[in-house]
Amino acid sequence: MTEAARADQPRTSGDAADVDTIELLALVAHLQHVAFGRLAEDAAAAPHVAQQLELSRLAAAAVVRRDRVLARVTELGGDPEARIGAYAELLDDFDSRTQPSTWWERLLRSYVAEGVSDDFCRIAAGAVDERSRVLLTEVLDDAAHAELAVAELESAGSQDAVLVSRLALWGRRLAGEALGVVQQALAGHPALVRLVNRPAAGGSADAAVTGAGAPAGTADEAAPRLFGELTAEHTRRMSRLGLTA
Amino acid sequence: MTEAARADQPRTSGDAADVDTIELLALVAHLQHVAFGRLAEDAAAAPHVAQQLELSRLAAAAVVRRDRVLARVTELGGDPEARIGAYAELLDDFDSRTQPSTWWERLLRSYVAEGVSDDFCRIAAGAVDERSRVLLTEVLDDAAHAELAVAELESAGSQDAVLVSRLALWGRRLAGEALGVVQQALAGHPALVRLVNRPAAGGSADAAVTGAGAPAGTADEAAPRLFGELTAEHTRRMSRLGLTA
Repeated sequence: MTEAARADQPRTSGDAADVDTIELLALVAHLQHVAFGRLAEDAAAAPHVAQQLELSRLAAAAVVRRDRVLARVTELGGDPEARIGAYAELLDDFDSRTQPSTWWERLLRSYVAEGVSDDFCRIAAGAVDERSRVLLTEVLDDAAHAELAVAELESAGSQDAVLVSRLALWGRRLAGEALGVVQQALAGHPALVRLVNRPAAGGSADAAVTGAGAPAGTADEAAPRLFGELTAEHTRRMSRLGLTA
Repeated sequence: MTEAARADQPRTSGDAADVDTIELLALVAHLQHVAFGRLAEDAAAAPHVAQQLELSRLAAAAVVRRDRVLARVTELGGDPEARIGAYAELLDDFDSRTQPSTWWERLLRSYVAEGVSDDFCRIAAGAVDERSRVLLTEVLDDAAHAELAVAELESAGSQDAVLVSRLALWGRRLAGEALGVVQQALAGHPALVRLVNRPAAGGSADAAVTGAGAPAGTADEAAPRLFGELTAEHTRRMSRLGLTA
């Protein structure tokens, strides 16, 4: 391979594993970029100044997280703009099918969509190199927005039983659409299927690398266990709000 | 004055000057908050991934600047949310009258609106206490977005004479509307008139305080010199883009 040809390839050892890792990093970076855009919209739509200020801070924090993840893409030899761009249309269907009609529906949409996508990324992150995994875990664990949504939705729900039952219905629809996005991501990105099917690296830095090049399985093979986990976590999150999943 | 009554008042010495300073700080904070929202919209509308990433970084930086200014409002004994909220509707007319129909019109709108408002705030900042003035100058001098707009508009204009003449026309309309916003701000906020009419503090920390309580003049008295300066600066900015103001 010539130097010029290598420029597009990861430059570290363990190329196959790095290619998969870059794909996951780019997905997380894309989701943080989307979160930024959504939080900025939320900030513009929020009824009170205090909410506007707080939501814009969360939007800014998403940009910082996204850029940390993109820096790791660069470290592994990937092209951040090209890799993040590959996910540009992933959420188009989700967005057009889940237009919120109220502030509460909007809050719940973020809560459900981020919950499902973060869980998916956390599972896939179990199979990458230690440094990437630590970074991804930090980024995914930053749950400040979820706390805000929980507090607001709980206090709204405690005063309004009709709202609670409407939001429970909305939450079920959102979960179905969000799981559809996961399926679509797996179908379009075989690297993600490989990561989800690879044994988690756990504490060992070598396990993920060892798994590279192993038979990846298909999106369908990944499905039952993965979707079971994602659904269980969604149910747990909804019950935190007092909503039936 | 009772302790309870004092709670709503600035708690430092030189109360009258601080009240005016807080009003200016809140205006700058509001404008940074608006810049955040606009940059976030720009990021969503930008045609290329690289622009999306860069614009979202600028949006995040505006949040950081806003919060630095709001921290100073708190230091001077003001209520950041209430003070920033007082400007919530200032730009409504400007926004509805200057809906951009292209990406270039959008870029130029930001360039003109931020140029005029930053110039106004810089002039008013000449009359506040030194610490606030240093902070405001730092915040207002952060011209990263202007650089981006200049580069993009220049390179677009160099290839398209029709675009240049359309943008020159658009720029004149934007300047008129932006000066209208300044007039509206002065009419609604006597503190800003006092600052603009007060002799600039220059290097002396005492001058602004000395000016407090002096006859403020009216918005109309402030007008000729102020609007002359704002227009001259606008003309200079447009010529940087090769546009006739």
